[in-house]
Amino acid sequence: MTESWVNSAEHIGADLHLELSGPGGRRAALTRALREAVRGGRLAPGTRLPPYRSLAADLGVARNTVADAYAELVAEGWLTARQGSGTRVAERAEPLRDTVRTPVEAPSRAGPVHDLRQGAPDASAFPRAAWAASYRRALQAAPNEAFGPGDPAGRRELRETLAEYLARARGVRTEPDRIVICSGFAHALRLLFGRGVQDGPGAGEVLRGPLGVEAYGLGFHRELLAAAGVRTVPLPLDEHGARVDALGRERAVLLTPAHQFPTGGPLHPERRAAVIGWARARGAVVLEDDYDGEFRYDRRPVGALQGLDPERVIHIGSVSKSLSPALRLGWMVLPRRYVEPVLAAKGEREGWASVPDQLALADFVACGSYDRHVRRMRQRYRRRRDRLLAALAAQAPHIEVAGIAAGLHAVLRLPPGTERSTVRAAVWRGVALDGLAAFRHPRSPTDAGDGLVVGYAAPAEHAYGAALEALCGVLPQG
Amino acid sequence: MTESWVNSAEHIGADLHLELSGPGGRRAALTRALREAVRGGRLAPGTRLPPYRSLAADLGVARNTVADAYAELVAEGWLTARQGSGTRVAERAEPLRDTVRTPVEAPSRAGPVHDLRQGAPDASAFPRAAWAASYRRALQAAPNEAFGPGDPAGRRELRETLAEYLARARGVRTEPDRIVICSGFAHALRLLFGRGVQDGPGAGEVLRGPLGVEAYGLGFHRELLAAAGVRTVPLPLDEHGARVDALGRERAVLLTPAHQFPTGGPLHPERRAAVIGWARARGAVVLEDDYDGEFRYDRRPVGALQGLDPERVIHIGSVSKSLSPALRLGWMVLPRRYVEPVLAAKGEREGWASVPDQLALADFVACGSYDRHVRRMRQRYRRRRDRLLAALAAQAPHIEVAGIAAGLHAVLRLPPGTERSTVRAAVWRGVALDGLAAFRHPRSPTDAGDGLVVGYAAPAEHAYGAALEALCGVLPQG
Repeated sequence: MTESWVNSAEHIGADLHLELSGPGGRRAALTRALREAVRGGRLAPGTRLPPYRSLAADLGVARNTVADAYAELVAEGWLTARQGSGTRVAERAEPLRDTVRTPVEAPSRAGPVHDLRQGAPDASAFPRAAWAASYRRALQAAPNEAFGPGDPAGRRELRETLAEYLARARGVRTEPDRIVICSGFAHALRLLFGRGVQDGPGAGEVLRGPLGVEAYGLGFHRELLAAAGVRTVPLPLDEHGARVDALGRERAVLLTPAHQFPTGGPLHPERRAAVIGWARARGAVVLEDDYDGEFRYDRRPVGALQGLDPERVIHIGSVSKSLSPALRLGWMVLPRRYVEPVLAAKGEREGWASVPDQLALADFVACGSYDRHVRRMRQRYRRRRDRLLAALAAQAPHIEVAGIAAGLHAVLRLPPGTERSTVRAAVWRGVALDGLAAFRHPRSPTDAGDGLVVGYAAPAEHAYGAALEALCGVLPQG
Repeated sequence: MTESWVNSAEHIGADLHLELSGPGGRRAALTRALREAVRGGRLAPGTRLPPYRSLAADLGVARNTVADAYAELVAEGWLTARQGSGTRVAERAEPLRDTVRTPVEAPSRAGPVHDLRQGAPDASAFPRAAWAASYRRALQAAPNEAFGPGDPAGRRELRETLAEYLARARGVRTEPDRIVICSGFAHALRLLFGRGVQDGPGAGEVLRGPLGVEAYGLGFHRELLAAAGVRTVPLPLDEHGARVDALGRERAVLLTPAHQFPTGGPLHPERRAAVIGWARARGAVVLEDDYDGEFRYDRRPVGALQGLDPERVIHIGSVSKSLSPALRLGWMVLPRRYVEPVLAAKGEREGWASVPDQLALADFVACGSYDRHVRRMRQRYRRRRDRLLAALAAQAPHIEVAGIAAGLHAVLRLPPGTERSTVRAAVWRGVALDGLAAFRHPRSPTDAGDGLVVGYAAPAEHAYGAALEALCGVLPQG
């Protein structure tokens, strides 16, 4: 067998300038360095990587650190792992140099065979024709000034339309002047808690920590807050959602009231009232991450917490789950007193959100295409959820499923101690998904136990059945 | 006369929570606060503002600070100033509530009558039809994965196309893997110098100060760098551009080699070589702000400095001047060693640039529409420059003009001591423009004298003649 590989782990280490002491932990640093080495071509397709233990020994890290980094990159499609032949750099098509003058398919790198990660909608379902029609109409109707420097608040056309839509669909009480357009939830967090490099150079932070957060949530958000110097205080979770009675001196709290992420379930009505009461009493504010509020299946939608007190809740949403994360469009619905500071943080001119896309979204919502798309996707995701439940009932009836009334993912409870091995087994079968542990706050007072977070939205329609088969094949036996 | 106004300056101050100690200086803070008060409706249309001296006394600031803030807001269209009736909040159309379901014209606030500020292209010239065609084609041709989470490097289709275009049009030597897409020049600066809230939570800063900058440049960039804790060291300017021989221990230098901003003129060939030599000797890097490299009139284009040494220059460009700032699309062409750190700073997924817009731009460049548009705009701006020169020759022959071989603006030299009064006089005539002083580094070793920076791109074609007339009417007599 020809080995294009690389003799020693030290060689890789030296070549990649691995800095495992960097922020984000050793696993993250190693993953990043290896990914870049593949992306940049320094590790050629087909190159065999050293065994876990050799690289671990040479880098002075735990064997599991290397194993996890490899597994993540296999899941992302940069590496392939096959029992018996070790871990290799994935083969990928070379860029088609001779077709450079027309848009070409991105060079396909071998992604995971089955993508059951949470977070992204079915990319194959993007409503290309309806979106293109809205874009064209919006471009034709736009006043000339739309192509000049943009208002950092966002286009009024979009804010008008969103105010009306959010009132109707999510029970949000607002007006266009209290909406600020942004590039998504992470951008909203940066605008609210930013220090140092502000989006607008003249701005100070809008909010300060300590910030209450749910004991389980997106690690990306925690890391972003930590980088901003915001101390997060994890709130216990139970079957009614976050234990907001644990809030004390925090100045703000970040919640997913419609559908706790990732464990599932809406915040109990009494707790909704309680957290508003806390915010009023303390002069604090609630950040409502309405990441999938449009997708409910078994009951009527839970209205936005914001509706209870528009002066105590910052409601944040985006089209990333409902339409596509490729558009980079989101919104913040702000209490009056935060409008000016957030705009100051954003700067004198729109620096981020594409104005034509903003206008297209305004048209897309106003002409009813957005509602139609959400309705269609709700049906599709509901069918997928039902197929997931049916497959589990048939092939793994001992696995309990939670968080299924809404959203684009479910939580599969696993027997204690089996989560990590199950995630690894999934990788070997080409199934990309995350264990619950990936979402746990480092100081979490709650142990949600072992589990898998199964996103059922990302696969294309035709690929979903095979993904379920592969998933059921790696679950621990009952 | 009915006065909807506000009795005392203290009242305004209290109501607006003015914090004049905020960053950016008192003038900036006051401007911001007043702008927000108008935008948010707290200062109603028609409201008369207090005289300079009353507000200045009440806020404990200089009278000129208030005068400058008012003037800026008049220039932006938030306030109106008429001799005899003082300064008032501009009248503006109420939002058309009953047309909320279709995109509506943004409520027109009365902008300046004549906009001769630099920085923005003619918004009325945006090539709507050609862009919409590219967008539609790109949307049809895109693979499904384009609508999933994006690659932070940017779409390969766009990077391929840009590598080819920048080589051809700007003499940039690169390959797609060394290009990173961003939202514009300011975003590039943030990615390079960011601290605190990183765009990617795991990132440290890519570059550090001290950073050499030109003695005159955009205040926005200086403020952004200052907020990031980057010390800037101003380099003297002369007729050959920045005195790069003054560079010493700086770790990087930010230059506008094709056309010094705002004083005009390309960097002398010997200095181009010298700054590369300095960077090599010091292990430093040159940031090339190629903000208007495509617009040259009297000589062949000056190739990008990056072509001299792709490993020592970060070349940064965008479509903000060539096409529209509304698209929020730019690019960084990086030395190999910075690719990974910049991608780490950007995060695991594309958080900013719209993927459909990226694909549309790739098509727009590849099919020749971009070249056609630049050619057309070059002719238009050249004609405008010639009309400006003709108008000055006829009506103000004593005024010397500089920086006219390229770009979208010219510098009019003024007699000593007349700049501030001329800018003020312009405001009263409805002409928005900036004096040279607005661009001067606080520790500038060079005094470029009094002058006006006249942007000739922003007005619509039909409005340009009147703008020139108004401009000539406010120039100091010879």
